[in-house]
Amino acid sequence: MAEQNRYHVAVVGATGAVGQKMIETLEDRNLPIETLTLLSSKRSAGKTVRFQNKNITVQEATPESFEGVDIALFSAGGSISKQLAPEAVKRGAVVIDNTSAYRMDPDVPLVVPEVNEQDIEKHQGIIANPNCSTIQMVAALEPLRQAYGLSRIIVSTYQAVSGAGNEASDELRQQTEAYLKEEQYTPEVLPVKGDEHHYPIAFNALPQIDKFQENGYTFEEMKMINETKKIMHAAELPVAATCVRLPIFTSHAESVYIEIDQEDVTVEELQSKLAAAPGITLEDDPKHQVYPTPLHAEGKRDVFVGRIRKDLDQSNGFHLWIVSDNLLKGAAWNSVQIAESVMNHQWFTKN
Amino acid sequence: MAEQNRYHVAVVGATGAVGQKMIETLEDRNLPIETLTLLSSKRSAGKTVRFQNKNITVQEATPESFEGVDIALFSAGGSISKQLAPEAVKRGAVVIDNTSAYRMDPDVPLVVPEVNEQDIEKHQGIIANPNCSTIQMVAALEPLRQAYGLSRIIVSTYQAVSGAGNEASDELRQQTEAYLKEEQYTPEVLPVKGDEHHYPIAFNALPQIDKFQENGYTFEEMKMINETKKIMHAAELPVAATCVRLPIFTSHAESVYIEIDQEDVTVEELQSKLAAAPGITLEDDPKHQVYPTPLHAEGKRDVFVGRIRKDLDQSNGFHLWIVSDNLLKGAAWNSVQIAESVMNHQWFTKN
Repeated sequence: MAEQNRYHVAVVGATGAVGQKMIETLEDRNLPIETLTLLSSKRSAGKTVRFQNKNITVQEATPESFEGVDIALFSAGGSISKQLAPEAVKRGAVVIDNTSAYRMDPDVPLVVPEVNEQDIEKHQGIIANPNCSTIQMVAALEPLRQAYGLSRIIVSTYQAVSGAGNEASDELRQQTEAYLKEEQYTPEVLPVKGDEHHYPIAFNALPQIDKFQENGYTFEEMKMINETKKIMHAAELPVAATCVRLPIFTSHAESVYIEIDQEDVTVEELQSKLAAAPGITLEDDPKHQVYPTPLHAEGKRDVFVGRIRKDLDQSNGFHLWIVSDNLLKGAAWNSVQIAESVMNHQWFTKN
Repeated sequence: MAEQNRYHVAVVGATGAVGQKMIETLEDRNLPIETLTLLSSKRSAGKTVRFQNKNITVQEATPESFEGVDIALFSAGGSISKQLAPEAVKRGAVVIDNTSAYRMDPDVPLVVPEVNEQDIEKHQGIIANPNCSTIQMVAALEPLRQAYGLSRIIVSTYQAVSGAGNEASDELRQQTEAYLKEEQYTPEVLPVKGDEHHYPIAFNALPQIDKFQENGYTFEEMKMINETKKIMHAAELPVAATCVRLPIFTSHAESVYIEIDQEDVTVEELQSKLAAAPGITLEDDPKHQVYPTPLHAEGKRDVFVGRIRKDLDQSNGFHLWIVSDNLLKGAAWNSVQIAESVMNHQWFTKN
């Protein structure tokens, strides 16, 4: 651990969509950073990134890159995490991993600080950051679960392309321009880079995020289902998800149906619980057309909730509309929050 | 009634997004039309529309416009229908009304031919065409309801801007261009023309379609809920809806959760029922990334269904993804189908 509680932090995947936001968020939050090491693939190494009025040169990530690092934020894809996270841990770093590599590992805490910060303490070197669409949903639902219990979740998502990386954002931009000029274009990235077929995203909706599993659900849908249960410590909670990619650059939205364990709870009670919850901004005033939208949530760290209304048939059923910047609370900000928590509680690896 | 079973058809709102598609669909289907009268507001009168290799001049709609008309297709807004549909009926026409003006009137059949064609026979001059998002959902769910019973519907929609008319499509196009050029723009149409606030639709998602009601639901959501019950003759069926406008020009998509009355039904059984159903195209092969998308459905008359999968917790629960061209099956084609049905069964007004 660094002296005087100033730390050596590394970002792996520093040139990616999430990595860039991690660096910005580390600066915005003014974390006590002695040294910031920026790491990437060989291809992106050599680029320069501005941090706290200094230029930092991005280096190729190797096992030796983690010598002396206290906290390493990984967001460079699952295979890089599988390969290098153990090397970082071996060298004494706490890894906060934004990929799906370790999320369902029973020895790895999967953390949204507003929900289960205390789980961080049990880490054995790696702490996993959940999937973007999961984070904003559990952050919004946990205050309701604590107050009223939760017996069911059904979610349909409206997800931004930046969740699939800078390449996907570039594809949306280029396709949109081509469409408007009535020019031909060939989809090459979405819905899933490396999958067999690619479909247009401009002015379209693709009901596939990540690859299909044997059960007909996509991996993204299974992440939402399994990660929610793990984060909430609610293995038996029924969760259903349909995940859809849309022509939106930033911020995921979610149409969520829940059933709570109590009858006779009012919309106003749910609103007041959410208004008081950490990390949540209530934007819910239909009379004045106040509700969250992706564009309005962009660049903000909170999770925004609106359109809260009681189901017309099910007395314990409610509908909500949950929106958050997928690169911030959905990725970079949640990872930095975990880093802050590790620093504040001195939950470093005991060597 | 016209002699030799050739009819005098009128289209009210002939220059609008739906009116244009009605005229195209009448031509595509080669209906036995003796005379086609095209009507509009005073503002649009005088325009010329091509139909069966002839130019037809659009005339201002007045009560007298309906003299001698057998079937009048209305799609010029609720207030025009309220004002002129009774005038058309008084003059012996059967009105097929695409606005919400008469849909919930107990004396007016609300018809999706694949579901309740027989209801047309009971008309008293006016037959209502349901809301676009309702039509495609009930068309896809009716074969399942007939086979297995239906005890619950929860839908989240992904709706195209053309449902709000040509002005909304123009706004999406102009905003998108401005956004990409980093130019300023002022939203003026969406989410609801004439409502107090307007929000950007380009690269955004707006959880408001039509005006908010006292109960916190939008009118669009209440249309889906109430119209579904009426069309299916299922007043007690629990239906919940969240309706969202997206930067898509054409075709609505819907993420639908249903519970059926039987246990142990398989996905394959649902697929085979839908594959055999009229007006439905099954596109459901996740292994090969086959599922419906709005762009692919554009210009087609069918309702496309995919992503059918069993809920992981509820043994009688299933998820589906339903897509259709909102201007065709959602509006023009369903109206023309009703017209064909009136002609085929000679369900004209008995004077």
